Amino acid sequence: MPRYKLVIEYNGGPFSGWQRQAHALSVQQVIEEAITRFSGETVGIQAAGRTDSGVHALGQVVSFDLSRDWDPFRIREAMNFHTKPHPIAIITAEAVPDEFEARFSATARHYEYRILNRRGRPALDTGKVWHVPMDLDVDAMHFAAQSILGKHDFTTFRAAECQANSPIRTLDTFTVSRQGEIIVVIAKARSFLHSQVRSMVGSLKLVGEGRWTPAAFRAALDAHDRSRCGPLAPPDGLYLTKVDY
Amino acid sequence: MPRYKLVIEYNGGPFSGWQRQAHALSVQQVIEEAITRFSGETVGIQAAGRTDSGVHALGQVVSFDLSRDWDPFRIREAMNFHTKPHPIAIITAEAVPDEFEARFSATARHYEYRILNRRGRPALDTGKVWHVPMDLDVDAMHFAAQSILGKHDFTTFRAAECQANSPIRTLDTFTVSRQGEIIVVIAKARSFLHSQVRSMVGSLKLVGEGRWTPAAFRAALDAHDRSRCGPLAPPDGLYLTKVDY
Repeated sequence: MPRYKLVIEYNGGPFSGWQRQAHALSVQQVIEEAITRFSGETVGIQAAGRTDSGVHALGQVVSFDLSRDWDPFRIREAMNFHTKPHPIAIITAEAVPDEFEARFSATARHYEYRILNRRGRPALDTGKVWHVPMDLDVDAMHFAAQSILGKHDFTTFRAAECQANSPIRTLDTFTVSRQGEIIVVIAKARSFLHSQVRSMVGSLKLVGEGRWTPAAFRAALDAHDRSRCGPLAPPDGLYLTKVDY
Repeated sequence: MPRYKLVIEYNGGPFSGWQRQAHALSVQQVIEEAITRFSGETVGIQAAGRTDSGVHALGQVVSFDLSRDWDPFRIREAMNFHTKPHPIAIITAEAVPDEFEARFSATARHYEYRILNRRGRPALDTGKVWHVPMDLDVDAMHFAAQSILGKHDFTTFRAAECQANSPIRTLDTFTVSRQGEIIVVIAKARSFLHSQVRSMVGSLKLVGEGRWTPAAFRAALDAHDRSRCGPLAPPDGLYLTKVDY
């Protein structure tokens, strides 16, 4: 069976998240139904990241099999047509080897979190940033972020409903920088725990406000205790930007 | 009477444009009503650019008078509160000298036009870009844009309903560049005619498609004939980014 890979952009706002659910519209459902519409086949697709409700993607990756060969250009065109009117765009489509699995072949996931740090609420980026009116100390946030790089038990920054076998993850990149009114947090790891990025960003905000020192941020990690996590950052500002293979 | 200046960001999508109208909601109406709510005064405000329906602003500038002194910080906070829930944000507020007029004191207006040039429709930037699926030749567009810099009769690129006394304008900057999937057109002039930027961008698109040569673009300008203009670019991609004084 020929296998295909899609790179997908979506606005997570109107969806219940990536994963199919019985009584709410997911991105997975829209994608799977679009595949059925052009190919006539019912497929189960695999995704690199199971984004939560409201979380966006610039470079989500999925893989699936079809029983016959299709021109990838036609797949992309058909998918862009059959996903209408949802805020989903198929950026690329390609045929891949049988061994390729969007979820298990991934060597790194890249996330970006955007905070709009100014008094006025977002006018053009409603639902696409976390609006924090109080001026945040970006240097302190970056310093704290750097202090948790590497391999750790991330229990503190893991949602209660996380289904991963182990809380151990290796954080390769975790930076905080200011681009005018926007604070950009970039996180890269082979994989993340459920809500890990939003948990870490929510805690970093406390550092930015001066309510936590960078040392307290690191101590929260070392406690391996979910109750030590700061309030979860909202999904609006989170983007799955890229997946490496 | 103390005079105040505001810099405003807005999503033009839900509005009938900047200017007040009897039977449709304008940005001007929301701003004027917000001023009345916090100050108790009925004011007429002046804006640097009378943006059309659907056109966005990152840096619209307005000026108005109040009968007593207000702390500009309080004006900004009150305006951001009283413009809710509209997609409008007051970025800065300041007291200005009596001679300052948002419209007539301006020495330059900066506009940016964003084209999303890829097969898939916008997922995250719906209503905020012009989606052009066919690959555009950005070098040809830039070459054509450069050919009309300077002082000209812009009758070809002027809306029929334009109320300016003269079609003569001086175009200081007009560039086209690609940033990945986004083509950015930047235009700067002391002032623009009604729909001038959208008229010029709509015609530049024909150059990008290879349907017009850059020389044909320049010839359209020189014809001083509105019927020689290409189809108007949609408002979605247009932003008033900055006003100089």
